[in-house]
Amino acid sequence: MAHITLPEGLPGITGPMAYRPETAKPLRALAEELLRGPNSLTSGERELIATYTSSQNDCYFCQTSHGAAAAHHLGGNTELVDRVKCNFETAPISDKLKALLAIAGQVQKGGKNVTTEHIACARSAGATDIEIHDTVLIAAAFCMYNRYVDGLATWAPHDPAAYTAMGARMAEHGYVNFVPAQPAEQPA
Amino acid sequence: MAHITLPEGLPGITGPMAYRPETAKPLRALAEELLRGPNSLTSGERELIATYTSSQNDCYFCQTSHGAAAAHHLGGNTELVDRVKCNFETAPISDKLKALLAIAGQVQKGGKNVTTEHIACARSAGATDIEIHDTVLIAAAFCMYNRYVDGLATWAPHDPAAYTAMGARMAEHGYVNFVPAQPAEQPA
Repeated sequence: MAHITLPEGLPGITGPMAYRPETAKPLRALAEELLRGPNSLTSGERELIATYTSSQNDCYFCQTSHGAAAAHHLGGNTELVDRVKCNFETAPISDKLKALLAIAGQVQKGGKNVTTEHIACARSAGATDIEIHDTVLIAAAFCMYNRYVDGLATWAPHDPAAYTAMGARMAEHGYVNFVPAQPAEQPA
Repeated sequence: MAHITLPEGLPGITGPMAYRPETAKPLRALAEELLRGPNSLTSGERELIATYTSSQNDCYFCQTSHGAAAAHHLGGNTELVDRVKCNFETAPISDKLKALLAIAGQVQKGGKNVTTEHIACARSAGATDIEIHDTVLIAAAFCMYNRYVDGLATWAPHDPAAYTAMGARMAEHGYVNFVPAQPAEQPA
């Protein structure tokens, strides 16, 4: 049960967002820009950064829903998402994305953990300043979203099919007007 | 020196915000709503929650600038701000604010650290659901802002007078159109 009374049947972050639309608006706009705005990183790459950060924060709802969005962008490749979460260094992704995921992992622990060596490694793999900027901000933003979801003890479905459908909607329709397809079955 | 090339002379978060206005817009709107929007918590109380979270994250720029904004809202009471950062349990603040700061401290460590006991304690001290919600989100949001500021190794002035002026501008003019008074002197 959530720590406060939230609208029923809305999974994860969508509950507190419906409860408090004033703060939901910039939270949604930020996710939209970071994950779906014009960018030299693909939305699939950016959703992988969001998913990896959420997995490091052990946030079930965010890592599963954004993992499903990432997989949708990547042609349904759920195995790749799992490999990135488990050990991105051995996953079949570019050296640039590995270096950006390493930066995201440091941001998750705390901003000061990002060193000039992490940045140099990303640059030598071809990352631009704006890609480094966006990686830091995506990881930082998911340290917020994850804490928002878990700090209020929001409800999350555990049916994988629910996340496949949710991820497809997130990937195709985005975050600004995102609403779950229908109130899901929520245990009392 | 910052990890990426940012506009010169802009302290802390204002550098990357000027560099990337697309993401700055929702980041500013979120701070405005959380810290200055209509609320049963005063802006002084909310700035104290932001300051305490930033101090727990060891973010110099955020704890000093928002500490100055808090002090401005509190009639210039910098001693109270220092006492909240040092040990809020012994500070001359309400039991409700102490209970909310305790929740913020748990959110800073990770969302799952907020327990039903922390919530019950806040409720028994008079906190409403929306005050609990906003406390969780303020603390979560500053876990983002702090990581953004430090993850990019942004420059911060160390002259206390600069923060007194900055805090007054933040408190009086808010965050949506916030610009530092003038580019501050930045060491090469």
